[in-house]
Amino acid sequence: MTQTFARLEVSPAYKVVYEAIEKEILSGRLKEGDQLPTETALAEQFGVNRSTVREGIRLLEQSGLVRREAGRRLHVNLPHYTELAPRVSRAMVMQRVTFRELWEVCMVLEPQAAVDACDRASDAELDALNRNLWEMKAALDAGTPLTDLDVEFHALVAEATGNKALLLAREPISLLFYPAVKVLFERPESSAVAGRRVVQAHQYIVDALKARDVETARLWMHKHMVDFKRGYDLCGLDIDAVVERMPGRA
Amino acid sequence: MTQTFARLEVSPAYKVVYEAIEKEILSGRLKEGDQLPTETALAEQFGVNRSTVREGIRLLEQSGLVRREAGRRLHVNLPHYTELAPRVSRAMVMQRVTFRELWEVCMVLEPQAAVDACDRASDAELDALNRNLWEMKAALDAGTPLTDLDVEFHALVAEATGNKALLLAREPISLLFYPAVKVLFERPESSAVAGRRVVQAHQYIVDALKARDVETARLWMHKHMVDFKRGYDLCGLDIDAVVERMPGRA
Repeated sequence: MTQTFARLEVSPAYKVVYEAIEKEILSGRLKEGDQLPTETALAEQFGVNRSTVREGIRLLEQSGLVRREAGRRLHVNLPHYTELAPRVSRAMVMQRVTFRELWEVCMVLEPQAAVDACDRASDAELDALNRNLWEMKAALDAGTPLTDLDVEFHALVAEATGNKALLLAREPISLLFYPAVKVLFERPESSAVAGRRVVQAHQYIVDALKARDVETARLWMHKHMVDFKRGYDLCGLDIDAVVERMPGRA
Repeated sequence: MTQTFARLEVSPAYKVVYEAIEKEILSGRLKEGDQLPTETALAEQFGVNRSTVREGIRLLEQSGLVRREAGRRLHVNLPHYTELAPRVSRAMVMQRVTFRELWEVCMVLEPQAAVDACDRASDAELDALNRNLWEMKAALDAGTPLTDLDVEFHALVAEATGNKALLLAREPISLLFYPAVKVLFERPESSAVAGRRVVQAHQYIVDALKARDVETARLWMHKHMVDFKRGYDLCGLDIDAVVERMPGRA
């Protein structure tokens, strides 16, 4: 009888280097900002060529796990949700996402965020929401742009949930959705009404969060989302049109 | 009176190169797989130094918009949701996301996915769900692993919604959530019951999708999600423990 062997799974050495360093970062043993050993030192520790280490590090840089700073020293880079979100938003734009698709997801995520924030918002988080509300009222009176404050309001509600999975899931959508609403604020026939309705809804939501009133928070966030679509329709905008570009880009 | 000027916002030249190419990709004029001109040709067209072009391209590579292929020619790389999702999942692991956080988001996204899939699933998509269901029944009988089929089932439901924003938002959570359920399938005291309950729920969901019965689809996906947590609790697992690692990694 001849002995037979199962096929070996051999990873290229640079991938093994990549995975060894990734594992230390995932486990938390290497922390944000920590400096990595030099290429030479890593090559020695791993017992591989410097070129292998270099290829592994290139992969770490490409995945955003490591950044090269002044003097070319390598530092651990923990991706924050605000850093990854634009990449996901961009992927959505490239895949020709429509306003309706974004809105459908907001219709479920935003009311749930309001519910969870009701249970968990700290005093500091409620203060931040209050400040945002007053700034938005001032901007409405002054006729200055509301979009950034609107994006911030919804991000503050989401942050008050303390749910990192929710934050990472909704941020890329939020980056595209709220700026798409900008057109409503800018159209002469809708701007005053749209602005007032948004501020009014935010007021009800903040009041509900302060009162820890889950059902009112859910209800007003839901109404608020329905209102976005209604404004879009009233302005004769096509909700099935693709979102053409990233906000803030020419 | 002295003329005063507003502060100019000057971007470094390599960023302008990056943005010029990104814009062509976002607009769809440069498509997946398209080859970029050489560095020399780009430098000539943009009227900048080759080193500036090289720096701009480095940024494009880092953002995953461009990949370097054999012969070092540069090609446009359109990020697909399955490509970005592991990066977002990894960010969640690094930020020490808990099973409860993942579950909370699944509790809202998955039932909505079932509802939208009810309206929109094509015959081919229903067939794929059916096939998945039968494979899972066979795996249950054979005692082979169910996790990959479970992940696939929920991805198929999400794909049947045709909503690209939903797909991109839920995939990173799904990649962590369903494999975390694996422990239930593996524990001797829960495996048989857990497997049967999962297959049963999938059966009800597929039947509802075929019948275009929105309320039953929503109800059974909701029950199914509640069941995951119940199983977790019954096994004495801590739902607030952090998800320690990416699935499929040592």
